[in-house]
Amino acid sequence: MSPIHVAVCGPALAGPAEFEAAEEVGRLLAEAGAIVVCGGGTGVMDAVARGCREAGGITVGLLADPDRADASEHLTVSIPTGMGETRNALVARSGQAVIAIGGEFGTLSEIALALKIGRPVVGLGTWEVAKPGYSSDPIVRVGSPTEAVRRALELASGL
Amino acid sequence: MSPIHVAVCGPALAGPAEFEAAEEVGRLLAEAGAIVVCGGGTGVMDAVARGCREAGGITVGLLADPDRADASEHLTVSIPTGMGETRNALVARSGQAVIAIGGEFGTLSEIALALKIGRPVVGLGTWEVAKPGYSSDPIVRVGSPTEAVRRALELASGL
Amino acid sequence: MSPIHVAVCGPALAGPAEFEAAEEVGRLLAEAGAIVVCGGGTGVMDAVARGCREAGGITVGLLADPDRADASEHLTVSIPTGMGETRNALVARSGQAVIAIGGEFGTLSEIALALKIGRPVVGLGTWEVAKPGYSSDPIVRVGSPTEAVRRALELASGL
Amino acid sequence: MSPIHVAVCGPALAGPAEFEAAEEVGRLLAEAGAIVVCGGGTGVMDAVARGCREAGGITVGLLADPDRADASEHLTVSIPTGMGETRNALVARSGQAVIAIGGEFGTLSEIALALKIGRPVVGLGTWEVAKPGYSSDPIVRVGSPTEAVRRALELASGL
Repeated sequence: MSPIHVAVCGPALAGPAEFEAAEEVGRLLAEAGAIVVCGGGTGVMDAVARGCREAGGITVGLLADPDRADASEHLTVSIPTGMGETRNALVARSGQAVIAIGGEFGTLSEIALALKIGRPVVGLGTWEVAKPGYSSDPIVRVGSPTEAVRRALELASGL
Repeated sequence: MSPIHVAVCGPALAGPAEFEAAEEVGRLLAEAGAIVVCGGGTGVMDAVARGCREAGGITVGLLADPDRADASEHLTVSIPTGMGETRNALVARSGQAVIAIGGEFGTLSEIALALKIGRPVVGLGTWEVAKPGYSSDPIVRVGSPTEAVRRALELASGL
Repeated sequence: MSPIHVAVCGPALAGPAEFEAAEEVGRLLAEAGAIVVCGGGTGVMDAVARGCREAGGITVGLLADPDRADASEHLTVSIPTGMGETRNALVARSGQAVIAIGGEFGTLSEIALALKIGRPVVGLGTWEVAKPGYSSDPIVRVGSPTEAVRRALELASGL
Repeated sequence: MSPIHVAVCGPALAGPAEFEAAEEVGRLLAEAGAIVVCGGGTGVMDAVARGCREAGGITVGLLADPDRADASEHLTVSIPTGMGETRNALVARSGQAVIAIGGEFGTLSEIALALKIGRPVVGLGTWEVAKPGYSSDPIVRVGSPTEAVRRALELASGL
């Protein structure tokens, strides 16, 4: 049986709290036997790959760049898409669930694309979105890396 | 000199108010000599193309589908990307400014991608986004099609 | 009724004969009311756009770059995909028929992608392809711009 | 240090000889510690993944489909791009060298895209390409899976 793939999104310029959370998320996903998919760059992307690798897991980086020069050194697999931000849709689509940690506009785009195509999104200190006449929160909010991974794995299995 | 390209985003399932607003936006952009880029489908996409065509303008549809079977009949140019929602990034990138009308998650993704790559976004009854420690509104809010087109053209020229 | 879209492919570094042929192809396609889709760059791409514009037609450039800085000045519509060579598939898919003029490896990729998805390919001094046990020529070979356009329009209508 | 990534291309409908060769290529790449990237479908794609997995290696499938329903069961990592044949460029770009086994037009497109962006291509019973005034063969021809893998790893290291 194929392992579960979980996408992890977050900013390239992350603060220490986001970095720590991402590393812990990577470690916990690896321990659960899940494959981590991310954008393969710096910040949250690098941290989740580092945590995953330290626990013996596999992280796939779908790189914005056309080559591997600036890829995180903690990736197991690197795919230089050369598509720039257009690759965000591939990150979102690759996760059977998506975990968003903090985030800038790139992360917001991955959340929106995931929701558009029906992928469950688990959020740790990330964007809130609202519009007139739409009262529910489409993001499953959690308060810790442990809870983020637990909820993501539950939601991914339910697909 | 090349004409200004303005991307117009909005839901495939639009209500009458959104449909009317989109048609008016298309008409005004055509009258200003701008080229309209949209997703080429139903709802807001179809309405903006209809308004643009009625005023003698050019609308380009970047279609999610691999063929033209379900494209709006009002498009001048249709590009069947076959990339599904991944093409949203191409819509956002093609506009020197982006006008978002109403919107579901696909529209939110186009707003986020546009902001990520530095395209100005003008919003007419669309998403609000917020996150901890981020107080400003990245979207230029307007109250009418006329104002949307005026602001979009100003912002596009400032690029 | 939507106009016919014809993709025209060829090298960014074209010789005078290819340049002249491309310009003539662009002119003839415009006169026939067809929309021209190309890669939007230099060489054959620029020449076909110039010929098309001089005859009052519409040329769409699907640019490899993320911006319009190096786009041909003769395009009516420019779509900066930011996808690099990955956009070749979009050029091939957008044509109801594809005309290949001369060509380097990028042109070969567009020919192959067009054939893969069932688009007819008309070739003017372009690649020959062969493999063991495959004797037919998948490309419709022509000897002049006039013949190229005539055959492309016939084949596109037959879709 | 990051492992070498080698892309392996070939038809979805492969004959027994191609299937056997692909399986052997997958096994040898895994034994050399390389990561295999392929299109993730049937035929050569499935065979190379099977050979790789049997030798304990990692195969990444960049799927044309928007989901994993028809993916090879032998993949370690699956990325459902939802981009159709447009994903061929990602396969070609991901390999530090590309091995082409047999092949239909999709394989030809991957060969051409790889050559366009400067990836070395090793061919085992695959396409020949020629054009007027171009006498050399851009593909490194080999006669066996062992030779294909040896040459691909040499060329990939030279990047």
